[in-house]
Amino acid sequence: MSKTIELAQHLEKLHINNMYKSDFYWTWDKTDEELDAIFTVADALRDLRERNKSTRIFDSGLGISIFRDNSTRTRFSFASACNLLGLTVQDLDEKKSQIAHGETVRETANMVSFMADVIGIRDDMFIGEGHKYQKTFMDAVKEGYRDGILEQQPTLVNLQCDVDHPTQCMADMLHIIHQFGGVENLKGKKIAMTWAYSPSYGKPLSVPQGVIGLMTRFGMDVVLAHPEGYDVMPEVEEIAKKNAAATGGSYKKVATMEEAFQDADIVYPKSWAPFAAMEERTKLYQAGDQKGIDELEKKLLAQNAQYKNWTCSEEMMKRTKNGSALYLHCLPADITGLSCPEGEVDNSVFDRYLVPLYKEASYKPYVIAAMIMMSKVKDPVSALMALDAADKRKLF
Amino acid sequence: MSKTIELAQHLEKLHINNMYKSDFYWTWDKTDEELDAIFTVADALRDLRERNKSTRIFDSGLGISIFRDNSTRTRFSFASACNLLGLTVQDLDEKKSQIAHGETVRETANMVSFMADVIGIRDDMFIGEGHKYQKTFMDAVKEGYRDGILEQQPTLVNLQCDVDHPTQCMADMLHIIHQFGGVENLKGKKIAMTWAYSPSYGKPLSVPQGVIGLMTRFGMDVVLAHPEGYDVMPEVEEIAKKNAAATGGSYKKVATMEEAFQDADIVYPKSWAPFAAMEERTKLYQAGDQKGIDELEKKLLAQNAQYKNWTCSEEMMKRTKNGSALYLHCLPADITGLSCPEGEVDNSVFDRYLVPLYKEASYKPYVIAAMIMMSKVKDPVSALMALDAADKRKLF
Amino acid sequence: MSKTIELAQHLEKLHINNMYKSDFYWTWDKTDEELDAIFTVADALRDLRERNKSTRIFDSGLGISIFRDNSTRTRFSFASACNLLGLTVQDLDEKKSQIAHGETVRETANMVSFMADVIGIRDDMFIGEGHKYQKTFMDAVKEGYRDGILEQQPTLVNLQCDVDHPTQCMADMLHIIHQFGGVENLKGKKIAMTWAYSPSYGKPLSVPQGVIGLMTRFGMDVVLAHPEGYDVMPEVEEIAKKNAAATGGSYKKVATMEEAFQDADIVYPKSWAPFAAMEERTKLYQAGDQKGIDELEKKLLAQNAQYKNWTCSEEMMKRTKNGSALYLHCLPADITGLSCPEGEVDNSVFDRYLVPLYKEASYKPYVIAAMIMMSKVKDPVSALMALDAADKRKLF
Repeated sequence: MSKTIELAQHLEKLHINNMYKSDFYWTWDKTDEELDAIFTVADALRDLRERNKSTRIFDSGLGISIFRDNSTRTRFSFASACNLLGLTVQDLDEKKSQIAHGETVRETANMVSFMADVIGIRDDMFIGEGHKYQKTFMDAVKEGYRDGILEQQPTLVNLQCDVDHPTQCMADMLHIIHQFGGVENLKGKKIAMTWAYSPSYGKPLSVPQGVIGLMTRFGMDVVLAHPEGYDVMPEVEEIAKKNAAATGGSYKKVATMEEAFQDADIVYPKSWAPFAAMEERTKLYQAGDQKGIDELEKKLLAQNAQYKNWTCSEEMMKRTKNGSALYLHCLPADITGLSCPEGEVDNSVFDRYLVPLYKEASYKPYVIAAMIMMSKVKDPVSALMALDAADKRKLF
Repeated sequence: MSKTIELAQHLEKLHINNMYKSDFYWTWDKTDEELDAIFTVADALRDLRERNKSTRIFDSGLGISIFRDNSTRTRFSFASACNLLGLTVQDLDEKKSQIAHGETVRETANMVSFMADVIGIRDDMFIGEGHKYQKTFMDAVKEGYRDGILEQQPTLVNLQCDVDHPTQCMADMLHIIHQFGGVENLKGKKIAMTWAYSPSYGKPLSVPQGVIGLMTRFGMDVVLAHPEGYDVMPEVEEIAKKNAAATGGSYKKVATMEEAFQDADIVYPKSWAPFAAMEERTKLYQAGDQKGIDELEKKLLAQNAQYKNWTCSEEMMKRTKNGSALYLHCLPADITGLSCPEGEVDNSVFDRYLVPLYKEASYKPYVIAAMIMMSKVKDPVSALMALDAADKRKLF
Repeated sequence: MSKTIELAQHLEKLHINNMYKSDFYWTWDKTDEELDAIFTVADALRDLRERNKSTRIFDSGLGISIFRDNSTRTRFSFASACNLLGLTVQDLDEKKSQIAHGETVRETANMVSFMADVIGIRDDMFIGEGHKYQKTFMDAVKEGYRDGILEQQPTLVNLQCDVDHPTQCMADMLHIIHQFGGVENLKGKKIAMTWAYSPSYGKPLSVPQGVIGLMTRFGMDVVLAHPEGYDVMPEVEEIAKKNAAATGGSYKKVATMEEAFQDADIVYPKSWAPFAAMEERTKLYQAGDQKGIDELEKKLLAQNAQYKNWTCSEEMMKRTKNGSALYLHCLPADITGLSCPEGEVDNSVFDRYLVPLYKEASYKPYVIAAMIMMSKVKDPVSALMALDAADKRKLF
């Protein structure tokens, strides 16, 4: 029996009837079994790919991508996922489009979705805006479908918003699961999500938020650490606490990177911007106050510079379990002595984890494809079984 | 019997032998039966899509798009149409290409068409230039096919030129046909194509021209209204007159929006630039006279501003048949109080017609796909029947 | 028996076991039989296309393109080749990506290659850099495949580097073979690769280098001519000499265009930059010395201007065999009196060779597709035979 068939049999036991035609905004919208389904289908698609099986579930159709921020890896992950399933990507490049000319989101959403099966949106720049944009967009296409404008109802894959980065964190989590030999081995494992110094400013909060919102669901001891003033959204911390309480794990905040790293099994040191400052920035942008933005940037860079010792050095790594915690990063990292004089991580640490880091990233296309498949296919168990018996991807 | 089979049977009765391998420049190049064929195939493709049938008529192949002006909706409509039929879009982005470095159109046309089944071109910026560019391009690929450079002869879909906007106007017309329950119900219906104020200037004339050139063929009473000096191309008015004479309809010009709207069944209020001014602008661009262009812009904006009362207000709408004429727009509209202080249409009017407006737009991908199909498939009746019996688009 | 079957039978006789999973950097990495295989498969794919046979060897998969220099024809050739074989192109646009933010090539290479079957890279701007970038990129994906990050091992098609332009030169050569009725008719034919004046500066050396490195392998008399100071890379000249010695042809340098053209069967007059100056420019760019770059440009343009008589005029053409040598160019050419006041070729000469020039270019998509096919398909003979029996490309 192939791995895919085994995975399909596992999928069959899960209660996942609500996933069909549903959007993927945040991991905490989904039940544990629904997340399990994503991981299961991601693994199955990877197994099928490895065995040169076609994984097309569409004969034709479009995946619309909207990147309101630069992106290489997420762009290629989305393109890979769409290709894997038989969809063609059509990118809505706002610079090429007439969106700037005052079109409303509602209109644009319908105009680009006539053949859209899935919509992938990255909008992480402005606190309070990213999720709102995604929601407005998807509400519009749902209305469009209801009103007979669209022949199919597109579903959303959140490719990063201001609140969560589910495709990243689910890929991170699937990597952890495989590194530790199964989700059943994660109980009591300590994971440190910590702020780290970067010479740039204003990095999104969606990764730390996504991590504490997701990783608290697997019985792990999740520790968040950051300098004063770099808090994440309090709503997400509440979710982390509830998750931990429900799964026998724990969630706590500590004041130093050292304490967070102490005996950690997994570390995720990464820069992000202070939540309050990002709220201020959003308001400055809305007011078109360039001078205010420049001043804020200066202030934030100075504030960052006070915490250059928050870095994943060799010394810091020694504190972790056996000095060899699993090092995670969403990439690209600011690497001390390689990409910047002082950054998030020592070059020697980063370099030692290169292969696992790339593996971590390699789950993202499959996670995205699994999210698409679960939202578009009514009976994913039968679909996986059919794909297992299907034709070759590379025909010769 | 499915709707598609019924439509295929209707198609069988039409005299459409000249459509295979032909280009689509202007609606008035086509016979009534040829236009009927486009509408019929568009409806059939939509029916197939609704029933989750694959509409691929190509296993592989390219659709080349060239947008010499910004575009969201036409870009996505073309991409959707190509995807629907199994073609992959390759966009000729002139900023990325070496066209600016002195390549001739003839050379470029051949270089991008080695695998091209269809070419979609939007070139509406300069009066006297858009159609010429399309013609030069298509003549070149025809020669390339004749000379054995290209293995297939690409055909054109005019995605908007300086003269006509056939994919838009055909979509508008198909929308009208469905709103009125069939083409047979259009006799004697009054449609008002009127100029409307916009705070921008220089909008193409291809929509009003396309509308009077097409809508006069269905027995309707077509009325054109615009302020003095905003005439459309006289050649197209001649066509409108001939069409009306041939089909028992009428074409006339009136001097006010009020008169045009009076008892109208359908209204299409939309800004456009004065023809003569656009000719002047073309010459200024060719001469590289930036100062002249700036002065012309100022003059045109001032001229526009004299006609702010040409707006589709609630008051104006009350003049129409039962106060509830079908409101049309090619989108995006300049909406008073939403996208600009004073524009083409009141927000409340626009908002009331949102669903029909989006439906109007939703026909465009199918119209484009029908144009492609009629030019690439020798026996479209058999093809539709085969598609009706074919596989699923969404496979699971 | 179809032409494709004949070609497959020829392919069967060649020793080409090393081509599977191999990259295509330079023609001189490949054996004569391997080059023969590329030509054979290119001809077969063209024959299949002409007979409306599907040439898909992939059900899905990505071809990644990276253009570190502007490109129209190579971009469309690569897109056409990928489409021909069933791959979707995903372009890594460095302006849209985070590469500029300090990512290493190794990381990017893995991040974009999760579903990549083939990578096409054009990087011809800087002597000493283009090939190095391609090699670094491909080494990274090979490691990624070995380490289980990638499920398939992508292979390279060099779309132009600083050393060779194999897709161009192989297309040129296939054109020559067909023009002269077979490779067996080329023995003793004289081909003149000569420098020609252009009002621009800094054109890559990869074409002249690729031509002398390839054309010396078919028993032809290859003559290189350029003004003093416009030498090509000495390593490539060494290869040309060895090739000539091995195949009974010859390679020599002459000092004037006149001598090169004398009794030539084929001429390839084209501008390029002095090798030494390009090395200097690379160093200036690396040092960020804009003033130095500007001065170098001025110097090079002045140097170029001394050799305006190096032009493919009607007079010059008269020196060739019967005054009617086959004129080659990689396009776009600088055409005297058309695209510039004084350039590489007279308008009347260029115009007379338009159809053969476009045919020359038309081989490139097939050559690229053949390179991909030979590197991805273990048994290309069976594959061609299966394609010959396969379904239609245009289904109706």
